[in-house]
Amino acid sequence: MLNSGAVGQRDRGRLLIACRDQPGIVAAVSRFLFEHGANIVQADQHTTDPTGGRFFMRVEFDLAGLDDGLPALEREFTPVGQRFEMDWRVRLASKPKRLGIFVSREAHCLLELLWRQKAGDLPAEIALVVSNHPDQEEVARASGAPFHHVPVSADTKPGAEREQLRLLDEYGVDTLVLARYMQVLSSEFVQRWAGRAINIHHSFLPAFAGANPYEQAHKRGVKLIGATAHYVTDELDAGPIIEQDVQRVDHRYGPNDLRRIGRLVERTVLARAVGWHVDDRVLVYDNKTVVFG
Amino acid sequence: MLNSGAVGQRDRGRLLIACRDQPGIVAAVSRFLFEHGANIVQADQHTTDPTGGRFFMRVEFDLAGLDDGLPALEREFTPVGQRFEMDWRVRLASKPKRLGIFVSREAHCLLELLWRQKAGDLPAEIALVVSNHPDQEEVARASGAPFHHVPVSADTKPGAEREQLRLLDEYGVDTLVLARYMQVLSSEFVQRWAGRAINIHHSFLPAFAGANPYEQAHKRGVKLIGATAHYVTDELDAGPIIEQDVQRVDHRYGPNDLRRIGRLVERTVLARAVGWHVDDRVLVYDNKTVVFG
Amino acid sequence: MLNSGAVGQRDRGRLLIACRDQPGIVAAVSRFLFEHGANIVQADQHTTDPTGGRFFMRVEFDLAGLDDGLPALEREFTPVGQRFEMDWRVRLASKPKRLGIFVSREAHCLLELLWRQKAGDLPAEIALVVSNHPDQEEVARASGAPFHHVPVSADTKPGAEREQLRLLDEYGVDTLVLARYMQVLSSEFVQRWAGRAINIHHSFLPAFAGANPYEQAHKRGVKLIGATAHYVTDELDAGPIIEQDVQRVDHRYGPNDLRRIGRLVERTVLARAVGWHVDDRVLVYDNKTVVFG
Amino acid sequence: MLNSGAVGQRDRGRLLIACRDQPGIVAAVSRFLFEHGANIVQADQHTTDPTGGRFFMRVEFDLAGLDDGLPALEREFTPVGQRFEMDWRVRLASKPKRLGIFVSREAHCLLELLWRQKAGDLPAEIALVVSNHPDQEEVARASGAPFHHVPVSADTKPGAEREQLRLLDEYGVDTLVLARYMQVLSSEFVQRWAGRAINIHHSFLPAFAGANPYEQAHKRGVKLIGATAHYVTDELDAGPIIEQDVQRVDHRYGPNDLRRIGRLVERTVLARAVGWHVDDRVLVYDNKTVVFG
Repeated sequence: MLNSGAVGQRDRGRLLIACRDQPGIVAAVSRFLFEHGANIVQADQHTTDPTGGRFFMRVEFDLAGLDDGLPALEREFTPVGQRFEMDWRVRLASKPKRLGIFVSREAHCLLELLWRQKAGDLPAEIALVVSNHPDQEEVARASGAPFHHVPVSADTKPGAEREQLRLLDEYGVDTLVLARYMQVLSSEFVQRWAGRAINIHHSFLPAFAGANPYEQAHKRGVKLIGATAHYVTDELDAGPIIEQDVQRVDHRYGPNDLRRIGRLVERTVLARAVGWHVDDRVLVYDNKTVVFG
Repeated sequence: MLNSGAVGQRDRGRLLIACRDQPGIVAAVSRFLFEHGANIVQADQHTTDPTGGRFFMRVEFDLAGLDDGLPALEREFTPVGQRFEMDWRVRLASKPKRLGIFVSREAHCLLELLWRQKAGDLPAEIALVVSNHPDQEEVARASGAPFHHVPVSADTKPGAEREQLRLLDEYGVDTLVLARYMQVLSSEFVQRWAGRAINIHHSFLPAFAGANPYEQAHKRGVKLIGATAHYVTDELDAGPIIEQDVQRVDHRYGPNDLRRIGRLVERTVLARAVGWHVDDRVLVYDNKTVVFG
Repeated sequence: MLNSGAVGQRDRGRLLIACRDQPGIVAAVSRFLFEHGANIVQADQHTTDPTGGRFFMRVEFDLAGLDDGLPALEREFTPVGQRFEMDWRVRLASKPKRLGIFVSREAHCLLELLWRQKAGDLPAEIALVVSNHPDQEEVARASGAPFHHVPVSADTKPGAEREQLRLLDEYGVDTLVLARYMQVLSSEFVQRWAGRAINIHHSFLPAFAGANPYEQAHKRGVKLIGATAHYVTDELDAGPIIEQDVQRVDHRYGPNDLRRIGRLVERTVLARAVGWHVDDRVLVYDNKTVVFG
Repeated sequence: MLNSGAVGQRDRGRLLIACRDQPGIVAAVSRFLFEHGANIVQADQHTTDPTGGRFFMRVEFDLAGLDDGLPALEREFTPVGQRFEMDWRVRLASKPKRLGIFVSREAHCLLELLWRQKAGDLPAEIALVVSNHPDQEEVARASGAPFHHVPVSADTKPGAEREQLRLLDEYGVDTLVLARYMQVLSSEFVQRWAGRAINIHHSFLPAFAGANPYEQAHKRGVKLIGATAHYVTDELDAGPIIEQDVQRVDHRYGPNDLRRIGRLVERTVLARAVGWHVDDRVLVYDNKTVVFG
């Protein structure tokens, strides 16, 4: 699937819409854009049921002067939104998302994001890297990203989360990526970042609860190692799935080999999910996602 | 990617459009559908360039009475089509495509199509099976499909093609599938079925010209075996690509193993391509395809 | 991965060994084969731990006169086996396995096995098809396989299983394939066929217990649909895994689409697993498998 | 497929053998190892034809004192090698390969190798990075690898190659990786590094000769983007293939998107190929490879 792979085209907007499906939505939206002189670059829509289901739309469009004229456009679209009781928003492609990356000891997901961003393949800004360990400071700084070490223990967690939230605020972060961050966030924290925080975790067929999942997967003799990227919700690892993938293994792979393969799958899956999110391609409903290609 | 997997929903239509990209197309089309009371089930569009490129659209919609009212709808859409100089057509989902399958000695692609059709996974009718060999008669008849043996040699080719064309006509075939049919069709034949005939052939990295491609692939030590499904054009195997896929092999695979793997890839790739075609998901331009998911 | 794809080479044997890893095993086995004039065609081995782990070996070899001389060879190998406390056996490639296929209403897995066998890609004999429904009788008979309808209900299950066991015996079945057979077999039945009965079931990330897994998968918004082939054991769907695979889906797929994709994955995964089993490539230990490529 | 993922187990050796297939090879080799007290960790073999074809073997073994006792072991194995006219060698796992990486402007392949090495997933040493451009100096140095800028033009090529060869020598490089190095090496250079130099290049179905392959691939409407890693030979891009892979694309991908996807495939494929090479898993014959898993 595609991501725009380019930062900040001027005067390009993305209109995102969710509402009850009903006749006339596309006609009203496309007429609005036409009458305002917008060129539609890409348009995707999805309905869960054409008669009364949920309707989703993403329109990427070029409109001269949009970067300055966004407030006016939003004002004028408001009656259209009201008429269909839409949840809607317009994003400017020229304002890339600002990522805050939380990481623990393992570097692989952090490195993949830094690398893709640097290569121009992840159209976002790395605003901040935060870790409960000092290990990845050098990696972060080498890429030019600010790094903050915020230790977390059972006792210090509330204070640590306050500090984390402060940092996210200070650095203007709008998208939080848990790139193998091994601490569970509090319910308050999660709710504050609902729909804007992405996590990656391993996943297997069958699933393994509890500690040492790679040991369990080895013991069970699985033939696939997978990873799942999802939005963070209160229930651990049960948030809306954005992307999943697997890689084959066989009887020759020991637990450490499975971990190594797992790292490869995790960094790929997380980078794809973050790429789609920063392109405003992911819409959430009913604890699942619509990902427009 | 999706196919509808269902034959013949009543009153469901598919509007297919290709034209120069210009402002107002989507607005005009969606307004037309809205004002005629249609429910949009799915809509996809693609532009090669929002300023003056080529624009493609596929809208799947439900409209009460469409099965009888199609001529009226077409009449009323005509001015819209003219205004934007569209190539356009409306297809009824209730009128499944009628497949004519040409096959030589190998059964695998034929069997996959027959099986998917029977399982309800290929929303089309098997109108006819034609072969230059008698081998697959039993397979075809067991599935209930008419079978005609039309032998072809260098001398008899023109007459054989006349007979083939007559059969395609007699059985009301609208989509021709070359399911490992090993005869080259004449330029006249190909042009008559342009955009409606699908072929499958093996493909490798690198490509191998000439005879015995699997021998050559084995000699070259390739690690992937592929297949490509494409529309048939005059230039052999150079028509618009609909679908491609590969499967891994290694040094232990002999030429016969490569052939066996090739058969698996071929039948999968061809069945996908035919499935998308019969769902009217494939639009052709500039010797390539837009495949709406 | 490979399968031999060929039935019944004369004088080809497969020696299968499992024992505690210890020095000298390969030397003793290869010396034995050399001194008996065997040509090694392929040899694979695996050790879970070179110092005291479990050792597995599969040697495919040609030996003139083997088809008649097997008993003598076995007698002479016996001391080697005793010295290393091996579980071992020799299989003749000229004696293909005889499959008994149990099926319920859905044809896809049955058809895939019949098709591959007919195409020469599954080196086995279809000895028998048994179903608790009459639906697939025609499919089975069209392929030339005997079909027996053995209805099963809660009340009649013990008698039905006796009849099934009798049929497996009567037709000389040595490998049982549950090709979407929707009845749970009794513990006695399962134990009698331990290591010789293969099942296929859907699998998801995460896993879904209970009824209507495809509804649940759709509700959860999974992006992959998988299938797992495994040996049948007492604990439902928890036997040694032979093969797994997945296919991608997205938000546009409804529950019926997921079922359709699931059928494609299931038939591929089951056919691969059965192919490796009939080639004597699968060794079981500790509730998992070694699959030699 | 596996790689050892671990640097430098003491006293672990890898015996690599190629010779004409003939009875008694495995028996002789395994007896030799047994009598010298070696524990076989993994053994793989392949024959192109059991009667007179080419035979390949790789044995990974543990033997107390091997690191110091290698010359003695080699001396004692010499008669075995002579008896079967083997090409053979023993490698010490404790002596990891030393990589010299040639790169031009694009960082992706270099970064992937540096990252895997640092993560402990590529058991080798990065001895040296050489580039005809200064762009990647910072990336190389940040990872701790020496970097040398050796400009190359048509006029200066001979001198530049002398300098490159000198550097490879000075830094004790034994494996050369062309990680998107865009200069063609001279025939003399290539022959000097035959079997020890790995290149990565894009590959497509069909193949595109000439300039701007991604433009051509876009124009042709391919549905797969691939990459091939191979040993460097005199004939451009025609050396023995070590690994290939592809990724799906569709009509929405422009030439730049194809390049971006190409980068992802290239770095994965190259890293796998280098990983297998440094594990001594790749044997070359007849311009193709045996890659032991």
